Amino acid sequence: MKKATFYHAGCPVCVSAEESITTIIDADRYDIELVHLGEARQRIAEAESMGVVSVPALVVDGRALHINFGASMEDVKG
Amino acid sequence: MKKATFYHAGCPVCVSAEESITTIIDADRYDIELVHLGEARQRIAEAESMGVVSVPALVVDGRALHINFGASMEDVKG
Repeated sequence: MKKATFYHAGCPVCVSAEESITTIIDADRYDIELVHLGEARQRIAEAESMGVVSVPALVVDGRALHINFGASMEDVKG
Repeated sequence: MKKATFYHAGCPVCVSAEESITTIIDADRYDIELVHLGEARQRIAEAESMGVVSVPALVVDGRALHINFGASMEDVKG
C-alpha cells in the first residue's frame, strides 16, 4: 500500500474535498490518512515540508495537490 | 462506471496534476476523460457550467476540484 495524506482544517471546503478524494481514490492501492492541522498542530511543519501552502491538500507520491482553497497555512497557524 | 472529467490546458502544472490524479483514481469505478480546453475550445462552456474557474480541474460527482493552479479560464479563453 502506498500512502496518501490529506491535510485539512475542518473548513467546509476541506470537508467537501475530503468527501470527493476519499470517494475517487483507489483504496486497494492507497492508504489515506486524514490530518486535521487545527488539532494536530505539531504536523504543520511536516505538511509545509511536503510543499503544502494551503488546505485542503493531498500529498501523494511526494507531490502536494492543493484541492480548491479553504485556508492558507498562515491562517492555519493563526 | 462513473465518469470523471479532467480539464486542462497542457500547462506544466496541468501535466503534473494529471499524472497524480490518473494514478490515484480507482480505474475500476471511474472512467476518466481528459479534455484539453486549448484544443477542444467548444467544451469551455461545459467546463464553466460545471463550476470550473481554473485549470487543471477534475469534475466528479458534480463537483469541481481545482487541483493546484495552472491558468484561469479567462487565460484559457485567451
